[in-house]
Formats: sequence, C-alpha cells, structure tokens
Amino acid sequence: MDRRNFIKTSSFGLTAAAVAGSGVVSLSSCCGKSAPVKKDVSLNISFQEGIAPGESLNEKFDYMEELGVVGFEPGGRDLAKRVQEIQDALKGRNIKVSAICAGFDGFILAEDPAEKTAFDTTMREIIAAAGQLGSTGVIMVPAFNGQLPCKPHTRETREFLVDELAKLGEYALKCGTTVILEPLNREECHYLRLVSDAAAICRDVNCEGVKCMGDFWHMKEETSDYAAFIAAGTKYLQHVHMASRGNRCMPGEDGDKDNYVDGFRALKEIGYDKYVSFECGCKGEREISVPAAVELIRSQWEQA
Amino acid sequence: MDRRNFIKTSSFGLTAAAVAGSGVVSLSSCCGKSAPVKKDVSLNISFQEGIAPGESLNEKFDYMEELGVVGFEPGGRDLAKRVQEIQDALKGRNIKVSAICAGFDGFILAEDPAEKTAFDTTMREIIAAAGQLGSTGVIMVPAFNGQLPCKPHTRETREFLVDELAKLGEYALKCGTTVILEPLNREECHYLRLVSDAAAICRDVNCEGVKCMGDFWHMKEETSDYAAFIAAGTKYLQHVHMASRGNRCMPGEDGDKDNYVDGFRALKEIGYDKYVSFECGCKGEREISVPAAVELIRSQWEQA
Repeated sequence: MDRRNFIKTSSFGLTAAAVAGSGVVSLSSCCGKSAPVKKDVSLNISFQEGIAPGESLNEKFDYMEELGVVGFEPGGRDLAKRVQEIQDALKGRNIKVSAICAGFDGFILAEDPAEKTAFDTTMREIIAAAGQLGSTGVIMVPAFNGQLPCKPHTRETREFLVDELAKLGEYALKCGTTVILEPLNREECHYLRLVSDAAAICRDVNCEGVKCMGDFWHMKEETSDYAAFIAAGTKYLQHVHMASRGNRCMPGEDGDKDNYVDGFRALKEIGYDKYVSFECGCKGEREISVPAAVELIRSQWEQA
Repeated sequence: MDRRNFIKTSSFGLTAAAVAGSGVVSLSSCCGKSAPVKKDVSLNISFQEGIAPGESLNEKFDYMEELGVVGFEPGGRDLAKRVQEIQDALKGRNIKVSAICAGFDGFILAEDPAEKTAFDTTMREIIAAAGQLGSTGVIMVPAFNGQLPCKPHTRETREFLVDELAKLGEYALKCGTTVILEPLNREECHYLRLVSDAAAICRDVNCEGVKCMGDFWHMKEETSDYAAFIAAGTKYLQHVHMASRGNRCMPGEDGDKDNYVDGFRALKEIGYDKYVSFECGCKGEREISVPAAVELIRSQWEQA
C-alpha cells in the first residue's frame, strides 16, 4: 500500500471536514485567512488495558462498550503474539485499536549500537503488528533520562533523529500505521518536553508516517494546552493521553486541577478525529472513578 | 522601585484591558473559560537604528515620525555612553525606546568563567542603561551555536539558566526594565529555537523581569506563528521582530512569503501592547521599501 492509498483508505485519514460533516462547520474566511471556528467534533475515548475493571479482554471491552468507550490502547510488548487475541476480542464490537503504547527494547538515540539495533528490530515488529490491528500508530519516546549512554542534545543528533524517523515512518506507512512521538515531562525525558517541539520534528521529517501526541499529565511542561495542540494541528497530532493533573490518576481525582477545557478547545478547533486515551492510575474504587472520569471529560468536551 | 511599583507605573505594564479600552473588547465567558476574541489592539511599530534612512538619529527619527513609527530599538553595545544622546534626540517626539538589542560580551551558558563574567558585567551595564531609557527590555540569546565551549544541553544546564535568569531578572526589575529571551533558528542557535520553549523558561524563572519574544524570521522553526505567540501570551511576550521571510529583508520584499497575518491574529487576541520592531536588511531602495513595508504590515494587522 503506498502512502497515498494509505491516507485515502485509513480510517484515521478522514479529513476534519468529513468527520465534522454532520455538525456545525463554518470557516470564517476574512481576507483569505480562516480563523479558528469550533467544529462539532466527536470525542473518541480510548482506554489502555489497565483502565477498565475486568479479568479478561472481553470483560474489559464489555465494560468499555457500556461507557461508550470506542478505543483500546494496548501495550506494544509482544504485540505480535497478541494480534489474534485482540482481533477476536474486538470482533463485532464498536471498539477499535487506537494507538499502541511503546513496548520496544533499546532506544532510538542510543550511543550503544546494540541498543539501537534492539530498538530498530523490536520497534519494527510492533509497527507491523500495529498495522495488522489497524492502529493509529506506535508511541515512542526518543530517550528517557535514564537511558544511557545517549547521543548528546545537539543539532547533529536532531538531524540524526529526523533521518531515522523518516526511515521508520516509511516502514510504518507500508504497514498501514504511523509512529507517534510523545513529549514527556522533564523528570522523565529532558530531550523532548513540548508538543510544539515534537510537531517541529514531524514537520522536518516530512513523512506522513511520523506524528506526535500530547499527554495532559506531561503537558504541565506547556505554558498553554491550547497553543500546544494548535502547534501540532491535525497535520501532526495523532493521539492524546488523559490523566488527572496532580497525581496521574483518573481525571477528576485531583479535583479542580483536572481542567482539560483549554486543550479540548484546541482539539475541537483543529477538528481532531483521533483518540483521547486514558493512561493513568486510580486512587479510588475503579467502578466509581472510571465512569466518573468519563463523565467529567465528556462534560468538559462540551464546555470547550 | 520594588517589583509591584514597577509593574504599576511602567508604561508597558498596562493591562490588555486598559490598552484595548477604547476598542471592541468582548470576552466570551462560556462555562468560566474565556475564548479568544480579537481585541482592537494598536500596532506599535519600532525600528532598529539601521532601518530608517538618514545620517543622524534626528534625521532618522524625523523619518520615523512621518511614518507613524513609535518605537526605537538601539543596539546594546556601549549603550551607557549613548543614554544622553538618545534621550536628547527623543525629546518632544512621539517615539519611545522599545527593546535594546543585545550588545553584551560573553554569554550566559559559557563554560569559561571569564566569558560568563564578561556577560554578567556587560549585560548589567546594558540593563542599567535600558532602565534609564525606559526600555521594555534587553534582548539576549543563551548561546549562539558558535559560542564555545558551552554548557551541554541537559536538564542541569536548564536549571542553571533558570537560576541565572532569576538573578538577572531581579536586577532588571530594580532598573525598571526586563531581560528578553530570543529564540533563533537552528543555523544560529540550536539551544533555543521555539517561542513556547522560551515561554516555558520564563514560567520556570517566575520573575516579572524575565520575558521572551518572537522574531518572524527565526519563526520558520515554528509549525504555527499563531500557536507560538499564544504559548507566550501577554504574561511572557515582550517584543516581536519583523523581517521578510525568505531573505530577512524588508517585509514585502519576499512577496507572498511575507505573510504575518496568523501571528498578528495571536497578538491581537492576547492584547499584545508592546512593539513590533524591524530587524532586517533591505534589498531595494530604502526610501521605497521601508514605507511599503510599514504599509504592508499595517494592512496585514487589519486583516488579522
């Protein structure tokens, strides 16, 4: 499948206009520039595997369907061995695989060739499985702080990263999916902390198979949730992670801190049509906190 | 003068609401969140010393007044010796000093203690002179690519920068001015390329004397001019540089590339009340290109 067909046929290649087709779409076009206008964009909620209560995938998916959760974000570790299991459990359901959360060995900025090879090999295995599952993309971090020895944070390393991502992105496109750069907070990854920086890397890579995401937990690094998502735009933004903003638990479990309206406003303005996926712990009773979190973010989405 | 009085009495401490008081200000307040609404914000044009034709400061200022240019951005080199000259030439005019463009020796991230001391000494001299001139702030770059040896781009260096800026910002506040971080493009400064990154540093410094800016020439690093300025907001954005976007000449000299509307839209939305200052070369006849550039950006400001 070439890039063009991938974009045309992929379920997440839908344009904002198509998705928002049934809603209120009015692009003001004063002087040839379109000002942002809120679109009637649907909120596509996704859960990582640990979020829903339940022993088996089927129990979890039953629970998610009850809540209207339409995406499932599995971990990437040994994903190839789980493709059949996941496909079977999703059969006949209104749930699709959203992104795949990492799970590879090594890292892309490793100085040690063995670490880099481990990354290249296992990342490609996960990408291939992600493609089989119709995933929006495989999440990756260029280098966690603890991953050493790491290439220095120089212009040359950025160029190396761009070149390597271009190769990875082309492979992902062939598999029918993407790779998704995730900025983290400084405690975890000094190298890439801002969504705008991840978006600028995507722009430089210039391959439809390389995208970025924002995680509301890590986005404490941002001065503006709104500006962060606008900087990425539909062109680069491929995934969003949700968590409470004080302790990375269920949205709402940190009270007033858990405000996502400013970021959601940007997602609606850009016509974001991918997933907003829960990656977080849970302080309270899961059977109470999870539905409450879903209700909270639906309510904030409406407000945005 | 303490920080509070500085903020209260400084001409550039005016709030957006006050500046936009005579214009159309309507903050929509759906669900407690205010959505961005364009304000009737005035465009305050400033020139660096080389922009206007003329032999003397007085000839240049006469020319600038004819064009309605209200700001003057001198270089920082030996500024202390020029305070009287500049004050005399500005007397009775509708032109104020905007920012001061660098001019210090050394650099803040220098590994060599002598280079760091040279920075500390000369930067403080310029800041003091900037305060005497009522300047909005002194522009600085943490480290040009060619400035070596430079501290490595690590989390520890960022913490060092934040600590050093806090000291510098407190000194600037005492002098009645600020220091302004300028992101540049990768050819000149890999360390700081994005306005959102500069804004995040200002947020971490948490001192009213430390601000940031955007330069439309360097902002080719951004994926979105609009998002860049929104990320800075009125809280951190203290200056803007103008140039054509292909060759860093007069706005308009690079034709259709010279579109500033998206960035201007953000400046209007945040109620930006500082200066938009020309730092650029000139391809054509200065007497033709300069007025044409002023007309172009006024027209795009209206469109924004």
